Amino acid sequence: MAMSGFLYNSWYVAAWDHEIVTGQLLSRKILGQNICFYRSEEGKVVALEDRCCHRWAPLSLGRQEGNAIRCMYHGLKFDPQGACIEIPGQAQIPDKARVRSYPVVQSKRWVWIWMGDADKADPTLIPDTFSLESPEWRMKPGYMHYQANYLYIIDNLLDFSHLTFVHPDTLGGTEALAGQRPAIRRMERGVNVERWVLDDQPAPFHKKVGQFPGDVDRWYIYDFWVPGVLLMDSGVQAARTGAREGKRHDALEFRSCQALTPETETTTHYFWAVPHNFALDDASVTDSIYQSVVTAFEEDRRMIEAQQRIVDTAPEGDMVAIVADAALMQFRSILQRMMHDERTKGGMHDMAT
Amino acid sequence: MAMSGFLYNSWYVAAWDHEIVTGQLLSRKILGQNICFYRSEEGKVVALEDRCCHRWAPLSLGRQEGNAIRCMYHGLKFDPQGACIEIPGQAQIPDKARVRSYPVVQSKRWVWIWMGDADKADPTLIPDTFSLESPEWRMKPGYMHYQANYLYIIDNLLDFSHLTFVHPDTLGGTEALAGQRPAIRRMERGVNVERWVLDDQPAPFHKKVGQFPGDVDRWYIYDFWVPGVLLMDSGVQAARTGAREGKRHDALEFRSCQALTPETETTTHYFWAVPHNFALDDASVTDSIYQSVVTAFEEDRRMIEAQQRIVDTAPEGDMVAIVADAALMQFRSILQRMMHDERTKGGMHDMAT
Amino acid sequence: MAMSGFLYNSWYVAAWDHEIVTGQLLSRKILGQNICFYRSEEGKVVALEDRCCHRWAPLSLGRQEGNAIRCMYHGLKFDPQGACIEIPGQAQIPDKARVRSYPVVQSKRWVWIWMGDADKADPTLIPDTFSLESPEWRMKPGYMHYQANYLYIIDNLLDFSHLTFVHPDTLGGTEALAGQRPAIRRMERGVNVERWVLDDQPAPFHKKVGQFPGDVDRWYIYDFWVPGVLLMDSGVQAARTGAREGKRHDALEFRSCQALTPETETTTHYFWAVPHNFALDDASVTDSIYQSVVTAFEEDRRMIEAQQRIVDTAPEGDMVAIVADAALMQFRSILQRMMHDERTKGGMHDMAT
Repeated sequence: MAMSGFLYNSWYVAAWDHEIVTGQLLSRKILGQNICFYRSEEGKVVALEDRCCHRWAPLSLGRQEGNAIRCMYHGLKFDPQGACIEIPGQAQIPDKARVRSYPVVQSKRWVWIWMGDADKADPTLIPDTFSLESPEWRMKPGYMHYQANYLYIIDNLLDFSHLTFVHPDTLGGTEALAGQRPAIRRMERGVNVERWVLDDQPAPFHKKVGQFPGDVDRWYIYDFWVPGVLLMDSGVQAARTGAREGKRHDALEFRSCQALTPETETTTHYFWAVPHNFALDDASVTDSIYQSVVTAFEEDRRMIEAQQRIVDTAPEGDMVAIVADAALMQFRSILQRMMHDERTKGGMHDMAT
Repeated sequence: MAMSGFLYNSWYVAAWDHEIVTGQLLSRKILGQNICFYRSEEGKVVALEDRCCHRWAPLSLGRQEGNAIRCMYHGLKFDPQGACIEIPGQAQIPDKARVRSYPVVQSKRWVWIWMGDADKADPTLIPDTFSLESPEWRMKPGYMHYQANYLYIIDNLLDFSHLTFVHPDTLGGTEALAGQRPAIRRMERGVNVERWVLDDQPAPFHKKVGQFPGDVDRWYIYDFWVPGVLLMDSGVQAARTGAREGKRHDALEFRSCQALTPETETTTHYFWAVPHNFALDDASVTDSIYQSVVTAFEEDRRMIEAQQRIVDTAPEGDMVAIVADAALMQFRSILQRMMHDERTKGGMHDMAT
Repeated sequence: MAMSGFLYNSWYVAAWDHEIVTGQLLSRKILGQNICFYRSEEGKVVALEDRCCHRWAPLSLGRQEGNAIRCMYHGLKFDPQGACIEIPGQAQIPDKARVRSYPVVQSKRWVWIWMGDADKADPTLIPDTFSLESPEWRMKPGYMHYQANYLYIIDNLLDFSHLTFVHPDTLGGTEALAGQRPAIRRMERGVNVERWVLDDQPAPFHKKVGQFPGDVDRWYIYDFWVPGVLLMDSGVQAARTGAREGKRHDALEFRSCQALTPETETTTHYFWAVPHNFALDDASVTDSIYQSVVTAFEEDRRMIEAQQRIVDTAPEGDMVAIVADAALMQFRSILQRMMHDERTKGGMHDMAT
């Protein structure tokens, strides 16, 4: 049921920028590959294969020395490009004494890594997460680790009818929301989803941060980029005040950024934040939103990890498609095409783990 | 060494009746299949595949609505026969939107499930566990989870010579008991075993609930039905007072019911009780018997789980048969024949997990 | 990367002598085989396959009776040669009712087991661990369990350049030590390594047990016997006082004995001690040395278990050899030859697990 393998020629979020601090080494597994991250003295993030080429000790148990990193097993030293530049007691350094180096770009609070051919790494493909650092938005950084394939989490995010059933007490939704049919637009590298719920109730988490005398209009408009980045415009505003016609006033608006990065075939890194543009000076509002989302995401995780366990133990039979699956079907078909192209045209065979 | 696979066209004990309560969902794995149990408003037990046909979320994380059950991921609703009767936001329900439903019968405190072809489910095949609910007997319900294939537990119960070695301080046995040869009678779907130990000591657990001025006669007479139900008449009475000739007076009698239900190939549900027909109004006697058996069964489990671990790690060589294996050999040969018939004649291929 | 399989026709350390006490049964897995050890009434160590031939219950859950052992599942009794000598309730004992018995020799504090053809077990091949029991040496027995293949630990011990990087605060080493090239001499069944570091600093653990007004000479001279026994002469003495020319006076000397015994392909028993010949009556010195070594070995373990985890999850690519690998290369080539000979000439096929 899970599509196996990964898309390699793509940017993935590897970390929040503050996770990588000069002088400290961060080991993180991405697409099944152990990677050692560190920050150079000039502040640039370096990503090296986390495996010394000598006896396969992890470099992350080593030591940063200037902009280089030393393996603390037998002392081999590597530069940020992965070339070995010192072997204790040995003058000659073999050419093949090197570790893989990965292209990395830090952009608007997130550290992005390119897992495929380095010469195809195009920084202009990195999605714009402006709301994570704009002074007009506030947020608290989120991270969650999942015992599930990343695509099951993406499925979840591509069909918000689950809000009604999984999140009645947090992100919330009525039967009307579950019954809504979103507009889905296919893009070159992703899908755009737009869902409006008019003249309905605000969600429990809305009520914690705003006043709603009557019914409201709610919207969720997002791009979901292959292989796993969601950027969303969502919000809530008094009903029949023109939100859908573009007249936003007194709305509570959010610009959520969410990134799913496969750790392995069955585990996932989930980086997320839900920036808001109101009550900018009230940290308790930012906290309230963060806590609501943590609670809601744990509701999702309980369901999705259970789904993964069923897939693990009973790989038989087909899933029955329903109308609400339209967006996830489109997304998976785009991803499938890109993975197919990569394998057949892109010479990615050697990337397979 | 373990026979692999299972007999499907058969009743298995799935639960004690009190485990399934209206409004609550019980998830239990049986023969490797995740099953969701619930009780209808009329009190009838329903057993559905614990996997929504849509995205394979577990129904047991859902909600009972009347006699139906709703998946709380995207809201699909199923009736007790497993047919999907509602998909939010979708008028048409595809025919294949259904989950498997299993025949279930509640009989004398136990809930029985039929794991094979539904049209072969014959309730008259269910063993009679009268002693679990008769007013002439008292018992406390027992359950134990085993990290071992169910057949190793059945082997244990088919050769009581182990009482002498595994249970010296509980169910107890002398060398005389271990040396006894039981009478074994082969039946169509099981074996009958009869073991008498005359003029010997009572067991430690007997002494806790009865007075024995001298030696005793002890007996164990049981049917063991394929694939895993033991119904036993056992007891103890002053020696040379005619117990073996059928003259029971002042005997302590037990009518044990024990059921082994495979959870997986290497784990087992063990449902059991040891009803007694004396001191019916003294709950401390019922408790004492229950506690003695719990302690004894933990002695068994320690040995049998160790045996399973050895089988797991060293699958080489043959087990050497001894005379005391006669009953377990017969039992396994009957089971083997029934499994063979099922696979070749019964069209059970599709049941294999 | 790991050489798979084991050398069977060889002595392995199975236990410290004090671990095996008359009347107690010790279960230990060696080369993937579960073995039950006990001590006869005359003090001789017995090693039997830890699996009753009847239903594969572990003998180690049994009971020593005189010099025999009884399985406490159904009561079969075995003599020290592994022959079944009693089956309750059965006069005739089948010939094949026996368990494997292993040659065992207790020698100078260690219990050695021969894992191959019993008739090839030659006690003269057992290395001489005199320092473990000589009155001229003192030591505290050490044991460590490793989640790594034994060869990775041997690699570590065959290249002391790692002292500089892994053990700066314990066994210690300067850059000079890491840069040193040891003399390596190939033997019939192992390698001899000799490393001198002249006019350098003492190690942190030296300073805890000795006074050093100035620089010192340090030496490490050891035989490493296939498949895994290291016997070392090491020490420290004031620099330029002739240690290398054989003039030892006021030296702190050690005669370390270390044995790596595979438990499985990925776990290892590590028996070790570091006897010293000074301050023989000061137990705090023995303790200090023991504690320093425990701390240092935990530093090794952290690195080597991490190395094993990388090998486990990413079995691709080659390790890049460096000059410092000379001893481990020789050792592995000798072991490889002996394993090859054993498989092709020695008829060891049936030993493979």
